[in-house]
Parts: sequence; structure tokens; C-alpha cells
Amino acid sequence: MKSRNASVAVIGAGGYIGSAIARKFAAEGFTVFAGRRNGGKLAPLVADVQAQGGRISARSLDARKEADISAFLQEADRAAPLEVCIFNIGANVNFPLLETTERVFRKVWEMACYGGFLSAREAARHMLARGRGCIFFTGATASLRGGSGYAAFASAKFGLRAVAQSAARELGPRNIHVAHLIIDAGVDTAWVRDRIRESEGQDALDNLDPGRLMNPASVAEAYWQLYQQPPDAWTFEQEIRPFGEKW
Amino acid sequence: MKSRNASVAVIGAGGYIGSAIARKFAAEGFTVFAGRRNGGKLAPLVADVQAQGGRISARSLDARKEADISAFLQEADRAAPLEVCIFNIGANVNFPLLETTERVFRKVWEMACYGGFLSAREAARHMLARGRGCIFFTGATASLRGGSGYAAFASAKFGLRAVAQSAARELGPRNIHVAHLIIDAGVDTAWVRDRIRESEGQDALDNLDPGRLMNPASVAEAYWQLYQQPPDAWTFEQEIRPFGEKW
Amino acid sequence: MKSRNASVAVIGAGGYIGSAIARKFAAEGFTVFAGRRNGGKLAPLVADVQAQGGRISARSLDARKEADISAFLQEADRAAPLEVCIFNIGANVNFPLLETTERVFRKVWEMACYGGFLSAREAARHMLARGRGCIFFTGATASLRGGSGYAAFASAKFGLRAVAQSAARELGPRNIHVAHLIIDAGVDTAWVRDRIRESEGQDALDNLDPGRLMNPASVAEAYWQLYQQPPDAWTFEQEIRPFGEKW
Amino acid sequence: MKSRNASVAVIGAGGYIGSAIARKFAAEGFTVFAGRRNGGKLAPLVADVQAQGGRISARSLDARKEADISAFLQEADRAAPLEVCIFNIGANVNFPLLETTERVFRKVWEMACYGGFLSAREAARHMLARGRGCIFFTGATASLRGGSGYAAFASAKFGLRAVAQSAARELGPRNIHVAHLIIDAGVDTAWVRDRIRESEGQDALDNLDPGRLMNPASVAEAYWQLYQQPPDAWTFEQEIRPFGEKW
Repeated sequence: MKSRNASVAVIGAGGYIGSAIARKFAAEGFTVFAGRRNGGKLAPLVADVQAQGGRISARSLDARKEADISAFLQEADRAAPLEVCIFNIGANVNFPLLETTERVFRKVWEMACYGGFLSAREAARHMLARGRGCIFFTGATASLRGGSGYAAFASAKFGLRAVAQSAARELGPRNIHVAHLIIDAGVDTAWVRDRIRESEGQDALDNLDPGRLMNPASVAEAYWQLYQQPPDAWTFEQEIRPFGEKW
Repeated sequence: MKSRNASVAVIGAGGYIGSAIARKFAAEGFTVFAGRRNGGKLAPLVADVQAQGGRISARSLDARKEADISAFLQEADRAAPLEVCIFNIGANVNFPLLETTERVFRKVWEMACYGGFLSAREAARHMLARGRGCIFFTGATASLRGGSGYAAFASAKFGLRAVAQSAARELGPRNIHVAHLIIDAGVDTAWVRDRIRESEGQDALDNLDPGRLMNPASVAEAYWQLYQQPPDAWTFEQEIRPFGEKW
Repeated sequence: MKSRNASVAVIGAGGYIGSAIARKFAAEGFTVFAGRRNGGKLAPLVADVQAQGGRISARSLDARKEADISAFLQEADRAAPLEVCIFNIGANVNFPLLETTERVFRKVWEMACYGGFLSAREAARHMLARGRGCIFFTGATASLRGGSGYAAFASAKFGLRAVAQSAARELGPRNIHVAHLIIDAGVDTAWVRDRIRESEGQDALDNLDPGRLMNPASVAEAYWQLYQQPPDAWTFEQEIRPFGEKW
Repeated sequence: MKSRNASVAVIGAGGYIGSAIARKFAAEGFTVFAGRRNGGKLAPLVADVQAQGGRISARSLDARKEADISAFLQEADRAAPLEVCIFNIGANVNFPLLETTERVFRKVWEMACYGGFLSAREAARHMLARGRGCIFFTGATASLRGGSGYAAFASAKFGLRAVAQSAARELGPRNIHVAHLIIDAGVDTAWVRDRIRESEGQDALDNLDPGRLMNPASVAEAYWQLYQQPPDAWTFEQEIRPFGEKW
């Protein structure tokens, strides 16, 4: 394994996409800083990455707290220059408008949008000082479309996309690559499989169309491609979907 | 003046656009409920509308407070059935990313996005019971484009647009017209004229291109057109700009 | 009926939308010039408009021929100053990609895009000389989305939208209002009703949801609203759909 | 050099982007079929690729002729299974609307849109039979924006994008990856450098901001990334621009 003097911060290192990103960048020699609400759940990821010879630190992290984000990124940068920051927190909920409480609306925004703003700003602080870096955001179908019942979720995802655009326009000319990756599909997770079983039955799950769900490793691959782009041909926004997806 | 048994709530009845909307709907016979942070500033508007024979109530209103919005709309609906609710609060600020404090980011969102969500939800409560109504939102260039320095403002305006889309998709089939009006231009206000004087000088202001600024009354006219659309040909989104505007 | 010294050219004055536009503008006092492939089919429209006291001329017109368009608009302008030109030719076809012949692809483009370019350019010639005018284009869902089987139709409609945008950006500052109206729904025509009967049965047709189809008169109304916009608040693009439409 | 039993067809193998694509895929072991209007100009590319040990065939090709496209792709497929088809023909012109002749409007469309349709359809014929393949299109800023003076060019590029979308939605579920790459910048070519010298002077050219122009090789790299995407995470549309580009 090639080793690099560079760290990647994965904010929202959940069990599927976030973990896959951590694994991929670790395999490419990065020092990984993985944060999620309950850092204890990161133990299997840490064990796994270390077994492969990778370097990884796991932390409990509340992305809605300025001080937490700031400390997390500072620590990452101290371990090795912060080269990549990936904000990967979602908060997919669906409620009829009248049943969307102010508490839900606010919490979804704090997790999926406000946390992204804090992450971008604090990551930029380290990267601007060094004149380089990548800040990537995970988007979703709801980043572009406010569907029925998605007032809270789409509002947060639209808002995050605006943060990404503003950051890209300000930081791009200073050699920091900001990108927004739109996952326009279901990802192959236990949660998504449960939803399919519930709504379509076990049979549907057993005979799942191979073109329907996205492998978390493929999302990680997409981020890796973004990381590798030369600075004269950067992508800001890119959507990915399985070949069978309707769009 | 034709009189109607209907009220319009104008949330964010500022001195220019909001007042023009209030005047227009009052002139068309609506009972107007006008709310803004400092209700005292609404006195001239009230005097003016009443002098024309219109009906208007003015209230201090903090759109970031659920109870305030709820009470305001309830009162409007009690005065006359709530037929139109227009959310017109902006919060245009520009800061480099690193200088965008968490306080600014949060406050801009609370005013320009969260307040819009509360308004839509509470207005829908009254309108769904009656099976009709219109909920309109004022958007801006920043609703579609996150420019450099606009992380806070664009994020809130993107978020508001998502709320509008979700509401339109859920409420449209129940006969409630939700629309998002994008003002893609400077509006002719004292504040905008000051900005032009500052950046381009008094001369520029004295010789202002007639195609450059938008008259607040023209925004009110656009809302009036949306109100008049037949239910088999509703517009969700519409942008307006003066003929001389670059886009 | 108010009479105006102004003409409107309706290019593609088919039996539904085009005729409704002609009727509306005639009722508002315009001299109408209505053109369609087979001008003979315009006889009922002419009789009807004249019975209402309106002024209308009908012509056979092949919008794919530069000389035809040029002569048609010149004649309209001679009758009364050409104030509005509405390009309303569609060519909705659906074929799998491999079965889309080069003949179909070219013909659909010539009718729905190339004809629109010729119309805009020739209308602009008259309007620029006079320093005012409106050029409106009828768009469709396929103006924004290339669905499966719509390579020919969507390609032409996308292309027409680009013509409209370019014209709007060039002619707007010269006081010519260019707009693109997107009809995102089925319109209530014999053809659409036949399609519904075919695919869903007579029953579906007999119990048609009132929020499903758009009345051609409502499209005409939308054009009339665009025509009435003050020059400091012009809309370039506006979509309309019935309240029951999924989008 | 790894050798593959696969061909790539580059339609519009001009001196910069097209050549760079040809070089990249040849270096990755593909048999390259390169076509451009004047095939004679491809001699240096052929010599160069062959000197590196690559396999390449060059042809004169008029992409506006169905029979030419069909024969070209058939020949490529016969040499080695056609795995990738890249349509790379532009026709960037700018004329005021009134000076855009019907001849220019038609020719630009035939080159930049109609040729793309023919290429996609004929490539799909070979690929569907084999159940796999990639069809890629080169887009531009004008694919998304009809600027002043770009009625002809933007109309063709919008139309091409619609073809790409329709093809992607129809062919994706059949395991053919269709993508549309938007180059939102000037590419570093002799023509672009001449334009800069003309409008900004030799000095501007001598002190060119390194973040301003895109290297043709970087475009080729972007295509290579698209080719490598796993089928559960395909991108349809992706824009690339140099870090210094305004957008």
C-alpha cells in the first residue's frame, strides 16, 4: 500500500457509503479521520481498515456543533495535511406537510445542511492556508427535486447544494476543488432492503434487478475519480445512478 | 372598489415589494393582513390603503416563531377566509465563506427559509379545510444560483424553493395553488439605489437605465396574475426581470 | 370590442391551442393573422371570429419555408403593426431510437425548431424597426426532458428553447419581449382524448379527472398574461399545468 | 501496452480534443477509428499513435450523411467489437439573430446535432446486439445556455443534449452507458489562443492564467473516467472546467 502524507475527513461515516469512502481512501494511502454521531459504531471499520494496513482514527462527532467540527478537522490536519473533506450526512424523512413538525424541519436542516456549511468552512480554513484541497458533498435526488412529503429533507439538500455552489465559486479560483455528487438511486444498504421488503415483499428482494441498487463501493469510486481530476478539468456536479434506474 | 369575502396574508410586508402587494390586493377588494418584524413601520401603508377605501390590518410578526405565524394566519382567516398567503421575507447578505458566522448562517435560514415553511404549513391548514387557496413565495436569483459569498443567502433561498416545490406537489392535487416567483433583478428601493450610488456614483443613479430596476408594483402585478390563473393552467415557477437585465 | 392598430401572427394555428390564441387576441381587438399547413381548415375559426366582430386573416403556411414565413409576417405587418408573433407548431412523435428514421428526425426538427427560428428572426425584423413587440414560443415537457422514445421530438423542442433564449437575451434590451411557455400537461383535444381512450378505455374518458387536461383557452389566457406584463417585469419562461398533473 | 479486443469510434477527431481522445484510448489498448471531414489531416495523429504501438484507422467522414456514419461504425465494429462511440463535432459560431442565415442555422444543426443522432442510433445498433457499450457526447456551455448571438449553435447543442438524454433513458436499462460531457470553458487550442490574442492582445496570451484554458488531454481523461464507471453508478451528465473559470 502506497502511503501519503495526507488526511481525508469523512463526516458522516455511516455503515455503508461513509465506510466505503473511508476504506477506499485508506487503501490509497490516506490517513482517514472518520466521524459519526456514535463513534463507537466505527469499531468494525477501524479494525477492518487496520487489518488491511491502513491508517484510520474514529471519533464521535456531532456535525451540528461548530466546536466539534472545528476540533475534528483540526485533529485530522494535525495527523496529516487535510487534503480531502467529505460531508456525507443525510437525514431522509418523509412526512405530509401538515405533519412536518418544526422540530423535524429544524433537525433535518441542522444535520444535512448546517453541518455541511460548518464542515466546508472549517475545511477551507486549513486548505486555503496550504493552497490546495478537495471538499466534497453527498447529494441526492432531493437535492434537485422537492417531491411530495419531502419539504424538510429536500429543503436541507437544496440548501446544502447552494453551500457547495457558493464554496465552489469562491474557492475554485484558489485551487480548492469543491464538488457535489448526486446519488440518484437507492444504495444497497440494510435499510433500503428493508424498505423494499416492506413495500414489495421478500420475493421482490430475492429477485432484485441487478441494475436497481448502487453498491456503496461505487460511490467511493466516484469520489476517488473526482479526487483524481486535473485542476484544468474539474467537475462541480455529477449524478450517478445504476443502469436500471428510472429518471 | 369591489369587495371580496377573502383575506390575503402578506408575511414580510416591507416598505417596497410587500407594501405593493398589500396595496394591490386591497385595491382588488381583499382584506389584507400585513405582518413585519416591526409592525409600527406599517402605519403609513395602513393609512394609505384605508384612504383608498381598502381594508387592512397590520401586525408585528416574527416569522421565525411558530406561534406568531400560527396566530397571524388564524386571525387573518377569522377576519375573512384566508385565500392567499404570500411569503416575502428575504435576508440578502454577502460574506466570504470564512467570515460567514454560524449565527449569520442560522439567522438568514430562519428568516428566509424556516419562516416560509411555517407560513406554508399553517396557511395550508386553513386552505385544505376549505379546499382552495394560494400560497406564493418570493424567490430571487439566489434561489437558483449559489454565487460567491452567498453561502448563507443562497442556501436559505434554495431551501425555500424546495419547500415550495414539495408543497406544490402535495397541495396542487388538492386545489391549492403554490407558486414561486423569482425576481431576477434589482428592485427599485432606497436600499438598492444606495448600493448603486456607492458602487457607481451619483451620476450612474441620475442616469439610470429605465430597463434596469424593477418597480415593486410590477412584482405585485405578477402575483396578481398568478392569483388569476385558472386551475387547469397553474404556474409553479416564473421568473421576472426588467428588459435591460443581463441573465 | 376594443379595436387596436396591432396585428398578432399565430404560426401553427391548429384546431385547439392555436385557435384559442387567435380567438383571445381577436377578442382583445387585434388583427389576427392565422397560418397553418392547410389554410382551408381555418374556415370555421375565421367564421367564428368574424361573427364575434373580430378581424382575422387565414393563410396556408409552410413554416419550414423561409419565403413563406417572411411573406406571412410581412402581410400581417402591412395589415396592422406586428405586435405579437406566436410560434405554436409541435410535432409530437415517439419512436424507439433504432426506428427513428433520419426523415422523421429531420422533419420534426424542421417543423418544431427551424420554423421557430425563421419566425423569430423575421418577426424581429419588423419589431426592431419599431422598437417594440412580443415573440412567444409554445414549449412542452419535452423542452426540458428527453424521455425514452423522444429523441426526435425532444431534440427539436430543446433546440427551439435555445432559439428562444438567445433571442430573449439579444432582443430584450431592445424592448422586445421573448417568452417560452411550457405546457407541462395534456391539452384537452380530440387527439389527446383518443389516446386516453386507447390506453385506458372509454370509462377512463367518461370519468376524466377535472384536474387532468388543460383547456386550450387557458393556454391563450397565459399568453395574454405574458403580453400584458410591464417591461420592467418580463417573464422569459413559465410552465403551466392543471392542478392534478404529476410533475 | 495492454491490448483489448475492442474498438472506439471518434467522430469528429479534430486536432485537439478528438485527437487527445484517440491517443488516450489507443494507449489503453483500443483499436481506434478516427473520422473527420478531411481524413487527410489525420495523418500526424495516425503516425503518432502507431509510433507508440497503438492501433488506429483514419477515415474521411461526413457526419451529416447517414450512409457515411453507418459505414464508418460498421467498419470499426468489424475491426474489433465497437465498445465506445464518442461524438465530438462542434460548430461554434456567433451571429446576431438577423444575420443568422437559414443556411448557417441548418448547417450547424446538421453537424452538431443531426450527426450526433445518426451516430448514436448506428452505434446503438451494434451495441444492443452485444448487450453493452458506451455512447458519449461532447457538450458545451451552449448545451445549457442560449446566449446572445448563439441561436444556431446553442439550438444545435441543446438538441444534441436531448438526443443524449433520450438515448440514455432508453438504452441505460439495456446496459449501454450514454453520457454527455459538458466542457464549460475554453480549450487550449490554436483557435482559442488566436481569439484571445485578437481580443486581449499578445500580452494577455503570454501571461495566460494557468487556470483559464483546459488541456485537451484532460477532456480525454474525463472520457476515460466515464468509461471506467461501474454500471451501478453511471453518470449521465458531467461538466468540467478549469479551476479559474467563472461560472
